[in-house]
Amino acid sequence: MNCLDKVSCSPGHAQQLADILICSDYRGHYSHGLNRLHIYVNDLAEKSTLSDGEPLIIKQKGATAWVDGCNLLGPVVGNFCMKLAIQKARTHGIGWVVAKSSNHFGIAGWYAESALQQGLVGMAFTNTSPCVFPTNSAEKSLGSNPICLAAPAANGDSFFLDMASTTVAYGKIEVVDRRGGKRIPRAWGADADGIETQDPKEVLNGGGLQPLGGSEATGGYKGTGLCMMVEILCGIMAGSSFGKSIRKWQTTDESANLGQCFVAIDPECFAPGFGERLSCFLDETRDLKPVDPSYPVQVAGDPERAHMYMCDELDGIVYKKSQLEHLNKLANDLGVHMFKAKKMTSSLETDGQSRIELEV
Amino acid sequence: MNCLDKVSCSPGHAQQLADILICSDYRGHYSHGLNRLHIYVNDLAEKSTLSDGEPLIIKQKGATAWVDGCNLLGPVVGNFCMKLAIQKARTHGIGWVVAKSSNHFGIAGWYAESALQQGLVGMAFTNTSPCVFPTNSAEKSLGSNPICLAAPAANGDSFFLDMASTTVAYGKIEVVDRRGGKRIPRAWGADADGIETQDPKEVLNGGGLQPLGGSEATGGYKGTGLCMMVEILCGIMAGSSFGKSIRKWQTTDESANLGQCFVAIDPECFAPGFGERLSCFLDETRDLKPVDPSYPVQVAGDPERAHMYMCDELDGIVYKKSQLEHLNKLANDLGVHMFKAKKMTSSLETDGQSRIELEV
Repeated sequence: MNCLDKVSCSPGHAQQLADILICSDYRGHYSHGLNRLHIYVNDLAEKSTLSDGEPLIIKQKGATAWVDGCNLLGPVVGNFCMKLAIQKARTHGIGWVVAKSSNHFGIAGWYAESALQQGLVGMAFTNTSPCVFPTNSAEKSLGSNPICLAAPAANGDSFFLDMASTTVAYGKIEVVDRRGGKRIPRAWGADADGIETQDPKEVLNGGGLQPLGGSEATGGYKGTGLCMMVEILCGIMAGSSFGKSIRKWQTTDESANLGQCFVAIDPECFAPGFGERLSCFLDETRDLKPVDPSYPVQVAGDPERAHMYMCDELDGIVYKKSQLEHLNKLANDLGVHMFKAKKMTSSLETDGQSRIELEV
Repeated sequence: MNCLDKVSCSPGHAQQLADILICSDYRGHYSHGLNRLHIYVNDLAEKSTLSDGEPLIIKQKGATAWVDGCNLLGPVVGNFCMKLAIQKARTHGIGWVVAKSSNHFGIAGWYAESALQQGLVGMAFTNTSPCVFPTNSAEKSLGSNPICLAAPAANGDSFFLDMASTTVAYGKIEVVDRRGGKRIPRAWGADADGIETQDPKEVLNGGGLQPLGGSEATGGYKGTGLCMMVEILCGIMAGSSFGKSIRKWQTTDESANLGQCFVAIDPECFAPGFGERLSCFLDETRDLKPVDPSYPVQVAGDPERAHMYMCDELDGIVYKKSQLEHLNKLANDLGVHMFKAKKMTSSLETDGQSRIELEV
């Protein structure tokens, strides 16, 4: 909050951004959490994102709305749109809201979660800066365009899919490289010429990600199709930037002008007993005989649930020392109070780095 | 039509089924075309699918509807639902229709296409009989649950994604095996214990398909998530059979009771110029520098377009001799007129089998 205040972000907007970044870390998606605070701070400092104002509804028809995000912080636009989609779902059974002139909105799951809290099925999509080679292409032209759907099951259980339409995120390749790994699995990334590679350095040095499925022989054209599908629901529907025209990741010379799509659906409009059936489906899946008993079958959302449970048990979010150092460098650069670690839990040491809980 | 008449299918229903089967073949999806006629015939003959009647709207709210497919032919249910979704899209901007008690509906693209013809974005989903091993599972519990989205671009162009949420369809593995191939790419299938295999025979003899992405390391858990997402939009929303409870493929001892979901969205509810932007996005993708100039970058729908163009040039749909023999065996078994090949185009010989155009 202090960092955002320093770049003149309105307190309401700063709170919305802080909430989603902390939520990402709580869910275990550190790549989308406080690790990215400096990017939002930089966007605000350079005025490539505006720090105050309110999104506008440009037009509405029945269950749909088109929103101008007015170049505000992504979470401010996203929260506005998902609230509207939820309202529409109450009246029309479904709400489908598309926004232009938005910015990076953090984890898509945050928005789906707010529909979930209302007993609704939630979906959220965004386009992102180009980092993916479409099948057979030697040029990157698509973002890692996430697909997210959350659905409420009985007894507080839920299905919670929040996935990039690439095989993995960049972060996963960076981790292998940082640990000195020389080889990544097939289907993760390609070299600068768009050719699949298993050398993490080739991906990180000018290469890019492969769509889910990897190369053409292993179904990568389907991942390309999903990536483009998300772009159609976002940039093409919203009339924002799309595809190759989206600014490069972390540049601030122009506004991001991202397109985003938010959907809420009331399952009560269809067969009664949705939550019970979903609960049964989730449990039937978890109870499948596993190939290896030490790796039980999980459903989308289970790894995040396990991480949140761990944080709850520890009464705080667990961070690596390097993350804290990264945050304190930012605080120092901005001349604000340093972040304070609550306690050291060295028993949780992994990757040779101790983990720390943080008070924010 | 004669075959369907022989099993007392009402002419209107038979026409709807014939239209979609021929359309599949025309698009080049022979696995979902007349090759499957015997399955529908068998369902009707065994009365596990009903041959006359009309689907019922059980409830409606705003942009949504829940439909009882009354155990009629899948295409009859699908056409009814998509028509309703299109009507709702005209009034509410979007129509979201879910059906229970349906049957195999052929290619999902048929329904999306009818929205496309109206200038709308169309989506269609169905659950199917279990054939997929979820990540880490030694049991098959999910269908190949297709994801389909078609969107209209300017000048008659379109984006047309119609994909199973598995890496490939069974048919592709059968083709490798029939040609004597000993090895399939990774990520296609698993053996009877759910372990990834590159031996086509292991997949075909009690094994099953892998979700898009293949094993866990190459992103298969995302394919599993997509598969489950489709099941939630279909079986769980519709209150039909779902997951493991869906009857085995090609059995007729119980009704299929499939769940299906049909969506139409009016892009005019959002930013003006959707078609032009999509056209630009499609062309920008096709124009990307290819890794290998002999394989230009394609967008979803391009391979089907090429196949339809070929059929148009030849003034008929091209079939292999073996397909004609299969159809004539069915005709013979039912005691109806044989299918008649229009002309032999031996110049198109592939796979050692000549191709034939068919009059139906």
